[in-house]
Amino acid sequence: MATSESESKGKIITCKAFVANAPGEPLVMQQILVQPPQKMEVRIKILYTSICHTDLSGWKGESEPQRAFPRIFGHEASGIVESVGEGVKDLNENDKVVIVFNGECGECNYCKCEKTNMCEKYGVNPMKRLMCDGTSRFSTIDGKLIYHFLNSSTFTEYTVVDSGCALKLNTEDILSLKKLTLLSCGVSTGIGAAWNNANVHAGSSVAIFGLGAIGLAVALGAQARGASKIIGVDVNPEKLTIAKAMGITDFINPRDEEKPVVEKIREMTGGGVHYSFECTGNVNVLRDSFLSCHEGWGLTILLGIHASPKLLPLHPMELFDGRKIEGSVFGGFKGKSQLPNLATECMKGAIKLDDFITHELPFDEINKAFDLLIAGKSLRCLLTL
Amino acid sequence: MATSESESKGKIITCKAFVANAPGEPLVMQQILVQPPQKMEVRIKILYTSICHTDLSGWKGESEPQRAFPRIFGHEASGIVESVGEGVKDLNENDKVVIVFNGECGECNYCKCEKTNMCEKYGVNPMKRLMCDGTSRFSTIDGKLIYHFLNSSTFTEYTVVDSGCALKLNTEDILSLKKLTLLSCGVSTGIGAAWNNANVHAGSSVAIFGLGAIGLAVALGAQARGASKIIGVDVNPEKLTIAKAMGITDFINPRDEEKPVVEKIREMTGGGVHYSFECTGNVNVLRDSFLSCHEGWGLTILLGIHASPKLLPLHPMELFDGRKIEGSVFGGFKGKSQLPNLATECMKGAIKLDDFITHELPFDEINKAFDLLIAGKSLRCLLTL
Repeated sequence: MATSESESKGKIITCKAFVANAPGEPLVMQQILVQPPQKMEVRIKILYTSICHTDLSGWKGESEPQRAFPRIFGHEASGIVESVGEGVKDLNENDKVVIVFNGECGECNYCKCEKTNMCEKYGVNPMKRLMCDGTSRFSTIDGKLIYHFLNSSTFTEYTVVDSGCALKLNTEDILSLKKLTLLSCGVSTGIGAAWNNANVHAGSSVAIFGLGAIGLAVALGAQARGASKIIGVDVNPEKLTIAKAMGITDFINPRDEEKPVVEKIREMTGGGVHYSFECTGNVNVLRDSFLSCHEGWGLTILLGIHASPKLLPLHPMELFDGRKIEGSVFGGFKGKSQLPNLATECMKGAIKLDDFITHELPFDEINKAFDLLIAGKSLRCLLTL
Repeated sequence: MATSESESKGKIITCKAFVANAPGEPLVMQQILVQPPQKMEVRIKILYTSICHTDLSGWKGESEPQRAFPRIFGHEASGIVESVGEGVKDLNENDKVVIVFNGECGECNYCKCEKTNMCEKYGVNPMKRLMCDGTSRFSTIDGKLIYHFLNSSTFTEYTVVDSGCALKLNTEDILSLKKLTLLSCGVSTGIGAAWNNANVHAGSSVAIFGLGAIGLAVALGAQARGASKIIGVDVNPEKLTIAKAMGITDFINPRDEEKPVVEKIREMTGGGVHYSFECTGNVNVLRDSFLSCHEGWGLTILLGIHASPKLLPLHPMELFDGRKIEGSVFGGFKGKSQLPNLATECMKGAIKLDDFITHELPFDEINKAFDLLIAGKSLRCLLTL
C-alpha cells in the first residue's frame, strides 16, 4: 500500500498491481506507478474486484487487434475516490464508487437519446487501451507503459478512470460496497437485460440459455418482474441448485433430453416463451434461443459474446414470423443515471446479490481466482485488497 | 357474367376466371364453377383487382412446396358481397369490401395480442391452397379442382374467402372503392411498416431501399408522420419522378455514386438514419439497409421477400451496436380491426393513392398487366371487371 489519501493527491502513487505481460500467462504482481487523474478523471483506491469472462478473453488475447501488453485487466470493482482531476463535479475525495466500464458522459447524442445506453466518449470500445488523451496513467517503475483495459483496469491497488465511468454509491456500509462490486458488469447486465431490453412482464415465460453469472442475473431480474415460468438451460448439472436459488423454475440439461430443447420448451409453454436470453456465445444455441420464442411476439436478447466469425444462423424470412432478436450491452443501463436505481434495490435487499459471490480470496491469490472461473467452479470470486 | 345477386344466392355460380394451369404459362380465361360460401365464408363479386409481386412468384412456381396448379392467383381486390355463409355476422349482401390476405379471426391468441398481426386461422400461410375445411370452392366446368391462393384468389368474377379476410368499407362511392383496392396488400404493407412496425417519428430520417409500390408506400407513410429526410435508393433512374411525388426528399442511384451507399447515407444524416426499409429481397441490400441505420437507435424493417437460401449476412456482434432489425407482414396491420383507420385516411385524401395506379386495363387483358409488372413499368395496373 502506498501513501495515504491526503498525502498522495496530485502525486504519482507507487502501488501493487497484477500485470498481464503476455497472452495467457499468469498475472505478475509488481510495483507500478499511477499518475494523478487528469481533466475529468478520478483516481480510485480499489477495495474489491472480481473477474468476468471478458477479462479472460482479453487476457487470452483471443481477439488479435485488441491485444495490448503489458496490461492491467479487471473491470468489476468498487473502491474509494482518492483524488479527482480538473472539472470533475459529481465526485469527490472519499466517495464510495463502483466502476462502470460502459460509462456515460451525459452530453453526447447517445447519452441524450432514451433508446440507447451507448456513449460516444465512455462507451464500450474494445480497441481502446489508453485514456481519452491517448496516454496511459500506468507505468512500470522503470517507466515502461502499461495499457488500460475497458475504461477500468481494476487489478491494481489504485486505478485512474474517466469520471463518467465511476458511479457514486450512497452508502456508508462497507459490506454493501463489497456486494455492490457485482454491479460493475455481469449482474447489472443480466438484470438489465430482463428489465430494460426485454421488459419482462408479470406472468410471462422466459428461457435462459447458459447459467453463468449473467444468465442467473437474468433469472433474478425476471423473477423480480413476476415472470411465472423461468426455464434455465445448461449442460452442467451442477448448476441446478444455484439455478433454483436464483429463481429458475424449470431446469433443462440438453444432454439429458431425448427431444431437441426447442421442442421441449415449446411443449412446456404452449408454443414458445415470451422472452429468451442467449448467454453462451454459441451460434447454435443462439438459433435454439430464437426458435424457443413464440411466433408473433417472442423476443430474444443476445448477451453472449460471439468471438467466432460465424454469421447469424437465421434466414431473413424467419424474421417474418414475428420473432425479434436484439443485442444487449450492460443490460441497457445508462451507467451513471440509471444504475443507481438498481443499486438501491440491491441495498434494500429486493435483489439478493449474495449468492453470486461463490468464492472470496485475498488480492494476492488472483491467479487462483482465474483458475476457478476457467474451470467453471465460480460465479464470482471476490478479491479483497 | 353469371346470374344476378338475388338469383345466385345459395347456388353454384358459373363465371369467368383467369386460371394458371402451369408455372409461368399465360393465364387462361375459362368458365369456372364457384360454390356457395360455407360456414364463416363470403362469396364476393370482384369489381377491381390488381397484381403484386407475390402473385408473380406464386405463378412462376418459384417455391417448389407451394406449387399447386391449376390455381386462381390474385390477392389485391375490391368488390361486393354476393352472399354470406352460416355464422357470418359482420358482413352482409351488397357490402362493399376489400379483400385482405392477412385476415383476422379475432379469437386466437395472436388476434388477442397487441404485439402481432398474425392470425392462427387466417394469417399468411404459403402452403395453404384450400379453404379451412380442406376443400376448394372453385372447379372447372367438368369438375376438376382449382386451388385457392393466399386466402384470396381474385382473378375471377366471383371468389369465396373467409369472412375474416374481407374488410367492409363504409363508402357508397365506387371511385373510392376502386382506389381502396390498393389497400389489399402493397400499399397497406408499406404505410403500415412506417406507422406500425417502425413507428416513424416527426423530424426523423428514413432510407428506403427499392422503390416499387411497397417502398413508395413506405415513403408516403413516413411523409405523413413528418419525417424530415426520406432517402430513396433504387438502381432504376426512371423512379426519380414518382419518388419525388411520393415524398422522397433525396434520391440515390447506387450506380451513379462513387462511394458505397452506406457511406453516402451516413454522411447525409450525421451517422445514419433512424429507420431503414429493405424492399428488394436481396441480402446484400439488406446488409446495406442495416448499416445505413445509426448505431444505438437505428431500426431496419424487412419487407422484401428473400427466396434464396442465403442467411442473414450479419454477425451476432453487430447486434450489439444498438441497431435493430425486424420483419413486417402486411405492415403490422390487423386486417379487420386496424385497417379501417387507414381506409378512412385514404378516403379523406390524407393519403393519396392515385399515383400508385399507373395503368388501367380491362380484366380480359390481365396477361398484359403481368408483362407490365415483370418489365418494371407499372406500380399497379388496375383491372376492371
